[in-house]
Amino acid sequence: MELKDDERLDDLLADEKMKIIQSPSAFAFSLDAVLLAHFANVPKKRGKIIDLCTGNGVIPLLLSKRSMVPITGVEIQERLYDMAVRNVSLNQLESQIHMIHGDLKDMPGYYGNDKFDYVTVNPPYFSTENKDHHNHNEYLTIARHEIYCTLEDVVRVCSQLAKSGGKVSMVHRPSRFVDMVTLFRKYKLEPKRIRFVYPKKGKEANILLIEAIRDGKPDVKLLPPLYAFKENGDYTEELEGILYGKKQ
Amino acid sequence: MELKDDERLDDLLADEKMKIIQSPSAFAFSLDAVLLAHFANVPKKRGKIIDLCTGNGVIPLLLSKRSMVPITGVEIQERLYDMAVRNVSLNQLESQIHMIHGDLKDMPGYYGNDKFDYVTVNPPYFSTENKDHHNHNEYLTIARHEIYCTLEDVVRVCSQLAKSGGKVSMVHRPSRFVDMVTLFRKYKLEPKRIRFVYPKKGKEANILLIEAIRDGKPDVKLLPPLYAFKENGDYTEELEGILYGKKQ
Repeated sequence: MELKDDERLDDLLADEKMKIIQSPSAFAFSLDAVLLAHFANVPKKRGKIIDLCTGNGVIPLLLSKRSMVPITGVEIQERLYDMAVRNVSLNQLESQIHMIHGDLKDMPGYYGNDKFDYVTVNPPYFSTENKDHHNHNEYLTIARHEIYCTLEDVVRVCSQLAKSGGKVSMVHRPSRFVDMVTLFRKYKLEPKRIRFVYPKKGKEANILLIEAIRDGKPDVKLLPPLYAFKENGDYTEELEGILYGKKQ
Repeated sequence: MELKDDERLDDLLADEKMKIIQSPSAFAFSLDAVLLAHFANVPKKRGKIIDLCTGNGVIPLLLSKRSMVPITGVEIQERLYDMAVRNVSLNQLESQIHMIHGDLKDMPGYYGNDKFDYVTVNPPYFSTENKDHHNHNEYLTIARHEIYCTLEDVVRVCSQLAKSGGKVSMVHRPSRFVDMVTLFRKYKLEPKRIRFVYPKKGKEANILLIEAIRDGKPDVKLLPPLYAFKENGDYTEELEGILYGKKQ
């Protein structure tokens, strides 16, 4: 497998012997992506999954360990798309995972509405209002800021792509929670499972996981909180299990 | 102090030597009310507080320990209003707490809009759709079901009564969370602090505490979760501190 520029080969779910190409200057997967892949109740045997803002394809790779259904990944940045394609080959997943280089906003036009059973997305978190916060690296800026898509674009497209009764999972910052829930309702995605991740006991949540059903009935469950670190700074057993792919 | 029918005198915040008149057949305060009073960041020295759906006045009584400002309680049921008035006398709080027998929906007309610095409310939790769930006891049915006010009525009135920049705190069931947040936004109450209460580790949340600012800017904090019980069934130290009024 060819590595380009500053790319390196990292372990993904060490217990499962998956590998992933990453690049410090272009894209390295985050804890958020791993948590989303673990949180998402994807269909195991029937249906179709699409992952928007797929980056180097980390979420499709992780989902392939828990599902046999076809998974599509969509990435707007060509360099990341190219990494994602090579990650699929590297793990011999060409028969299950298909990568598309494109803008998520074009996907409903391309696929038509109501086509997927499950949509996952780890979107850019930061609004573009404060340009000072932009990363000087263009790849990272696009991945992290709402340059090519706003949160409303993402929610609208998720809603269009999902079948009625299909599910959408998203990871985001808790500070955008009210925005998210309001947009979800606007686009007929009814939140059903919410989980907050706390860095450690006594701290405010810093990651939000949310799963909604297209045209679902109002009634949301707040799952037990997930703590990332113990008092001594080690990963909690629960997070360790998620990161290393241990069966729970 | 006269006790009527099946009323009894209970301890409230044992460490603070407060007493409260309750009645098993009419109204006994819940953990939810105590948690809301503890969660609410009420003004200490300046401003005005109003507590809607005040029942036997438990929330104004509790808030009087943390605030010197005038507190108004509003209760629609005459028997509960009568208990609330006697609870104020019993604890010699007539100079701080004023009880009103009336419908919360009439309060904006009575007081005018934008009059209070802080609004608290522990509203009826259950919609009226399923009549089978109604309690056969009329007092309890009115306190717990949306008979005289819907969640939207409550949120709208809170928004009307609060000054711009004033705060509103509410306790509710997590299952209504998305409804609440959507209504809060509709009525210009921006959620700023949210806390979920979990019965014990590994369980879903069963109580939601939310504080919003009238005309506030979007940016919400998810506070550390509160656990009610330890594995052995005892109260957690944190809940014990809240229930018994221990200084933390």
